[in-house]
Amino acid sequence: MIAVHIEKRRASIRKLAKPRRPEGYAVIRLLRGGICNTDIELLRGYYGFSGIPGHEFVGEVLEADNARLVGRRVVGEINLACRRCDWCKRGLGRHCPTRKVLGIVGHAGAFREFLTLPEVNLHVVPEKIPTEVAVFTEPLAAACEILEQGTLPQGAEVAVLGDGKLGLLVAQVLQGVGHRVHQFGRHANKLRIAAKAGVATEIRRKDLPVAAYDWVVEATGSADGLREAVQMTRPRGTVFMKSTVHGTVAIDTAPVIVNEITLIGSRCGPFEPALNLLAAGKIHVSEMISEEFPLSEAPRAFKAATQKGVLKVVFSA
Amino acid sequence: MIAVHIEKRRASIRKLAKPRRPEGYAVIRLLRGGICNTDIELLRGYYGFSGIPGHEFVGEVLEADNARLVGRRVVGEINLACRRCDWCKRGLGRHCPTRKVLGIVGHAGAFREFLTLPEVNLHVVPEKIPTEVAVFTEPLAAACEILEQGTLPQGAEVAVLGDGKLGLLVAQVLQGVGHRVHQFGRHANKLRIAAKAGVATEIRRKDLPVAAYDWVVEATGSADGLREAVQMTRPRGTVFMKSTVHGTVAIDTAPVIVNEITLIGSRCGPFEPALNLLAAGKIHVSEMISEEFPLSEAPRAFKAATQKGVLKVVFSA
Repeated sequence: MIAVHIEKRRASIRKLAKPRRPEGYAVIRLLRGGICNTDIELLRGYYGFSGIPGHEFVGEVLEADNARLVGRRVVGEINLACRRCDWCKRGLGRHCPTRKVLGIVGHAGAFREFLTLPEVNLHVVPEKIPTEVAVFTEPLAAACEILEQGTLPQGAEVAVLGDGKLGLLVAQVLQGVGHRVHQFGRHANKLRIAAKAGVATEIRRKDLPVAAYDWVVEATGSADGLREAVQMTRPRGTVFMKSTVHGTVAIDTAPVIVNEITLIGSRCGPFEPALNLLAAGKIHVSEMISEEFPLSEAPRAFKAATQKGVLKVVFSA
Repeated sequence: MIAVHIEKRRASIRKLAKPRRPEGYAVIRLLRGGICNTDIELLRGYYGFSGIPGHEFVGEVLEADNARLVGRRVVGEINLACRRCDWCKRGLGRHCPTRKVLGIVGHAGAFREFLTLPEVNLHVVPEKIPTEVAVFTEPLAAACEILEQGTLPQGAEVAVLGDGKLGLLVAQVLQGVGHRVHQFGRHANKLRIAAKAGVATEIRRKDLPVAAYDWVVEATGSADGLREAVQMTRPRGTVFMKSTVHGTVAIDTAPVIVNEITLIGSRCGPFEPALNLLAAGKIHVSEMISEEFPLSEAPRAFKAATQKGVLKVVFSA
C-alpha cells in the first residue's frame, strides 16, 4: 500500500506492507482524509515528528473482531487510551496520560491506504451522511467540546474570533444548538459559509469590540488572538482557547485578573454530537473543501493546504 | 494633615488640608494602613500614577451621614462604584466600568491622616478583632475571592504556589474553610506562618510536582509563576491567577489547551467572609507584620517593603 510519510520537514510517499491487525483493532480502508493545521505543524517539524500523519478520516472496515463493523463506514476517535487508568475509568480517555494519538503520538496515522485503530475508537457513520461530509467529524467534535466544558447558558450571545476551519465549525455548532453567534474574520468567502448557517458575520476591523461579550471563542490560530479575545470579553466572562499556536504566547495577565476572566483550554471532543449535527444537516461543511488530492500527491496536497485563503484539503483514496 | 504622595517614582510627605466630606461619604481617621504590592508598583511608575496611594486601612469614623458609624472602627471596600449600571445592579460593583478605586484610580488613597470613602463601602470591625489584625481585611478579602469564583469541592486538595503576603493569606483561607492545602514557597520563615494554620508547607525545589493537583493557586508574583502553575495542574484542572505582574507574561498555551486547563483571573473579594475569618481567629496575620512606620516616614516604609524576605509593612497613625 502507499502511505504519506513526514520526515525532516518533507512529505513523501512510501510503499509499505498493509498493516497486520492486532486483537481488538480494526483494519480500515481509507476513503477520505482531511489535512488539519496540526498536520501542517508536524510537517514544519514542530514536535520532532517523523512517521505517517493524519487523524481526520472516514474509512471502510475490512477486518475486525466485531463482525458487525466489517463493511461499514466509520470515523475514529484519535486518542488510543490505556482503558485502565483513573482518567480512562472516568470516561476521560482523551486525557489518559499514556495515550497514543493517531498520526501524532505513537500510532501511525490515517494518511495511508489501510490504517488500524482500536474498535472501541470507531463510530459507524449514519447512511445519510455522505463520505465527504463525514470526514469533518473529528474537527467538528473538537468544536463540540465547548458544549461539554462550558456553562454556556441557553441562547447565549457568543463571539467567535477567527474564520479558519475550526472557527467556522465552532460558529456553526454554537449557532446550531441555539446560541446567537457573532463571528469576526478576515475573509468574506469563508464567513459566507457560517452566514449560511445563520451566524452573524463581520469582517474584522483593526479595533474589535471591547468588553462586549460574556463568551468568546478564540480560534484565530495566531499568537495575537488570545490578547484580542481577552479584550473582547466582559468582566467575569469566559474565553475558550481553541487555537494551537506553536511556542509561547505573550499575554498581559493584568486584564485577565482585573476583569476576573476565565480562560478554558479546549481540545478534542465527543464524536456522537458531531455525527448528530452532521446527520441533521446543520453544519455546512462541503463548502469548506478547497481541494481534493489522491494520497499519491501528498506533497502537492500539503502545499495547497498552506496557501492563504484555503480551507480544508482532503485526500481521497 | 500629612499625606503620603507618590509622583515620578518618589514617595514624599505633603501637608494638605483635611478633606471635606461629600454627602454619602464618611471622613475617617487613619489607624493603620498596609502597604500592598500594588502600592509598590504605583511607586515604580507602572500605571503613570501620581497622588496619594493606599487602599488597605483601618480607621475611625469622624463624620458621616449615618450617625451610627461615627466613632466606630471601620475597614473599607476599595471600589467606588456608580451604583446605577448593570454591574452595580447585579451586586458586582467591583466590576463597575466607571468605578474609582481608593488610592489607585481617581480617588485619593488611605495613606493620609484623614481619608474619605462612601459610607456604603464601610464595614464596622467587630470589637474582638484588634486593629493591627483588621488591617489585613482587604487583602484577606482578595484571598476569599477564590471561594466566590470557584467550584472547589469540599475538602479539595489545593496547591498554593508562592509564599508572599497574598499566598500566605490564600493558603490560610482555603485551609480555614476545610480544604487540604499544600503550599510551595522559598522562605522557611514565611511558610511557618501558614504551617501554624495547618497548611502543609514545602520549600520548593527546582522541579515542582507535575500534573499533580486539580486546583492550583498562582500567587508567586513572578512572570514565571503561571507557567509553573499550569505544569502542576492535572488535565481538566483549574489555576486561579492571583499574581499581578507588570507587563506581558510569556506562556506556552499548548499545555493549557491539550490538558484543557481552566485559568481564572481573581482580584478583589468580599469583606464579610474576611472579617468572619479574622473574628474566628483562623488566620495568622500578626506574624505577617514585618515593620511599622508612622506616615511621616513613608519613604523609609516603602523602602522596607521592597526588601527581600519582608512581608507586610504597616503605617500607624
